[in-house]
This record gives sequence, C-alpha cells and structure tokens, in this order.
Amino acid sequence: MGELVFVGMGLYDEKGVSFCGLEEAKTSDFVFAEFYTSLMTGLSLERLERMLGKEVLVVSRKTLEDDNGEPILQKAEKLKVVFLVPGDPLIATTHVDLRIRAEKRGIKTRIVHGASIVSAAMGLSGLQNYRFGRSVTVPFSEPGGVYETPYNVVAENKSRDLHTLCFLDIRVEEERFMTAQEALRILLLLEEKNKMHAVTLDSLAVGIARAGAENAVVKADSVKSLLNYNFGSPPHTLVFPAERLHFVEADALVKLAGAPERVKKMAR
Amino acid sequence: MGELVFVGMGLYDEKGVSFCGLEEAKTSDFVFAEFYTSLMTGLSLERLERMLGKEVLVVSRKTLEDDNGEPILQKAEKLKVVFLVPGDPLIATTHVDLRIRAEKRGIKTRIVHGASIVSAAMGLSGLQNYRFGRSVTVPFSEPGGVYETPYNVVAENKSRDLHTLCFLDIRVEEERFMTAQEALRILLLLEEKNKMHAVTLDSLAVGIARAGAENAVVKADSVKSLLNYNFGSPPHTLVFPAERLHFVEADALVKLAGAPERVKKMAR
Repeated sequence: MGELVFVGMGLYDEKGVSFCGLEEAKTSDFVFAEFYTSLMTGLSLERLERMLGKEVLVVSRKTLEDDNGEPILQKAEKLKVVFLVPGDPLIATTHVDLRIRAEKRGIKTRIVHGASIVSAAMGLSGLQNYRFGRSVTVPFSEPGGVYETPYNVVAENKSRDLHTLCFLDIRVEEERFMTAQEALRILLLLEEKNKMHAVTLDSLAVGIARAGAENAVVKADSVKSLLNYNFGSPPHTLVFPAERLHFVEADALVKLAGAPERVKKMAR
Repeated sequence: MGELVFVGMGLYDEKGVSFCGLEEAKTSDFVFAEFYTSLMTGLSLERLERMLGKEVLVVSRKTLEDDNGEPILQKAEKLKVVFLVPGDPLIATTHVDLRIRAEKRGIKTRIVHGASIVSAAMGLSGLQNYRFGRSVTVPFSEPGGVYETPYNVVAENKSRDLHTLCFLDIRVEEERFMTAQEALRILLLLEEKNKMHAVTLDSLAVGIARAGAENAVVKADSVKSLLNYNFGSPPHTLVFPAERLHFVEADALVKLAGAPERVKKMAR
C-alpha cells in the first residue's frame, strides 16, 4: 500500500519546510516538487536535495494539470511518495484535485502544512485577520480586456468595512511576475471606468515584497506614493485596508510598515 | 544592539517549526515561548528544549497582556531573543502589539512564518481560499448572554455566496477548549432567535479536529449529524460552506471529508 504525503515548503527558500516535513521527505521512496504555483526566490534545488539527502523530481504545470499528476500517482500506488509544494499545500485547487484522484485510486494521503502567504501577508500588514474579507488574485490583462473581479472585490470589502488581500499573478513558465505597481495601475484603470472610489490615487494600500525572506519589505502609503516606491524583486502582494482602522492597526501601519502619521486619523 | 525574532511553531507539535525557525532559536541568546493563543496538543516542552538545545522560558497571557511583554523586551534590548508562537506569529493581535513596542524601543524585529490554522483549515476543508469571507471566533457564552457576531458573520457570508471559517474559543488557563458540538449548539440557539436560515440542523458544515496532527479529522455533514459525530480531542475548527459549491469543492467534501453524496447537488 502506497501513500502520498503533501508537504508545504513555506515561503521564500528551502529552509521554510517544517521539521516534520523534512522527516517525511527523508523517509519517503520518492520526492516530487512543483515550483509554478508560487515563486520561492531563495530556493535552490541543489541545496534542497542536499538537505533531504535525496533526488527531487520537479513536475511541471503540464504534468499536474494536463496529465493529472499521473507520474506521481503511479509511484504512490505502491510506495511512499512526498510531494513538496510552495506555501501550504492545499491552497492551490490543482493540488486538492490531485488529492481527490489519489484517494479515488485507494492511495492514502496526508498533509504536512507549511507557512502560507495567506496568513503571512495578514500578519505582516499588521491588520487583524478577522477583518479580512474575501481575497482575490489580480491577473495579467489579456488582449481581450481587463478582468474586473479584483476591483469589485476591493470595493465590496470596503463597503463592508473589511480589508482585502490581493495575490498578484505569476507565470513562472514565462518568467512574468506581477509587481505591486502593475497591479495598482490595473486597479486604477478599473477605478476610472467604475468610479466606486475603491482604489484611487489617495487610497491607502500596503505592498509586501518577498514575504518570508530576510529582506522582506512591507510598505504602507497612498497608492500614488506606492507607484513610485521601490519594492525590489518579486513576489509582491497587496493589501487594501478598510476605510476605518482599529487603533492597533493604525499604529502597526505607521510603526511597522512606514505609513504616514495621518493614517492614525483613520483609527477608531 | 538586540533583536527580537518572532518564530511561528506551526500546528500540533514541536516538529511544526521550520528549519529556518530552528536555526534562529539555536543561534539566539534567549528563547521565550507562549502556549495560550493556540492549543498545540502534541507539543512537549522537554522535547522542544532538546530539539533547540536550550532552555525555553514560557510566558503567560499576564506577562504579555498586562505586563506588555516586559521580560522579553528587556532581554531583546541587548541580546538576540527568539519568541516562539503557535501557528503564524503575527495572527494574534497581542503579538503585533509586542512587535510595535519592540520597534518603538529601537529593537529590530524579524518574522519567521509558520503554518497557520487559517490556511490549514481552508486547505483541509477542500474549499477554495478565495471563496472565504471574513472569519470569526465563536466565544464561550457569558452569563450576560450570547455573543451574536459569529452567527451574523456566517449569515452575511452566505448571503454573498462565501464560506466562513470559525475559530473556536480556547481558554488554556481554565483548560476549556470549545468543541465543534458546543459551537454548533451556540449557533443553533442564535438561529432560533434570528431565523435567517444561516445555521439550521440541515445546514452543511465541516468540522476539523487537530489540524496538523497525524490523527487529524475532517468531517463534512449536516449540522444535525455533526452534533453526534465523535471528533476526538480538541482543538476543533468549523467551516460553513456557501450554499453553492464549485464542482471540485463538492467532490472534495465527498471524497476527502466524508460528506454525503447529496452534497454534489449543491455544485454548479
């Protein structure tokens, strides 16, 4: 009887994996990994393999999405297989799908969780997790037009006095990683069209770069100022705070994210 | 110049800490830890100290909330201090507050993220993270009455076709940990009063016990059935799915969380 253990690698580099995940990988017959659902800029495959003491087989989007992860499932039918995934392993729908396929074939599955950008970005922003509404991804614009959902989600959350966490599109195969500035420009275009005052040049936003890295950057300011702020290399994430802040949130934005003092006027 | 490194311990036991967090603790002058914001049932202080090769000073809620973490800050003014926190370290507001106090005193702070129940519960439920509305904590009822916010949050999220993640109250000092059943009974009482059809005996819910443990349990069924389901020991978490499900979500609830086949009728 085989088994498939999904192990979260956490953020940034190979040292993000938990001690428990490391043990699972060391005691497995095969280790697979994917690096296309998130960008782990500090990770070196060579160092990872040295840490685990075994070869890591990297699978592509095609293997997982078009071929339904068949190479992984075939091994896991009889052996212990570890599948390393950036962040927390079941946040990407494609991995939930792989887990369902495995269970349908009688393969036992287990999960070893890892740090995720979901909780990391909430914590780094200094904003309270129970005040976040639904989150959303800002995708690259296609020739056909701009996808309006991200703008609408920010507007809806603001109307309910909630914060919004925006993930930014990454296309590892094309080496395209959306920057905070690109996302802000997309949202400003949608503001011009929809005029709901959700993302204006004066709106407060928080940009987060390289969460989990030693050189992580968190900067809160007006959209106008953030358009000229140098966040450095990707990955980037954006947070749009609600119009009203709890006083600890305002204090955190000023002291931990370098927001201008006037943000304190938004506090209750 | 001292520094204060917040290190997330992840879920369940001492092996939830990342390799990076382990290194930070090993190279620090003092290691503090708190165990009251989340329940890590598998953790042994003795094993943790052995893993780190040094003493771990456990701080209480009183030290952090009444005394503003003064013992930690005093050490961190001149030395490298690691503060171990269950889950991802900045999800609890009290730790954001400690970080602000440290920075105000000129102490450099850094964050090593850990797996959080926020992303773990989303992933384990098989529901898609961008369909979660705001999350909420169900507190123990006080003699004065029942706190209505959790019910209202579930109702609001459902009205917007969103899922709800409910954290359940824990009071480590009193050894009281709310079970899924207790939370369901509180919400059913509020349903009787408010009649918004948010949490009825027929509503679908997902109970999660001991996320991150080898013996984690995830069970989806009607509230009526879950009231009689044996989840085992705490900690427990609840998820209330939206009334409509994506077909992968319905499939996941059936295959991964043992939901009845009729759940597939909720799929689009």
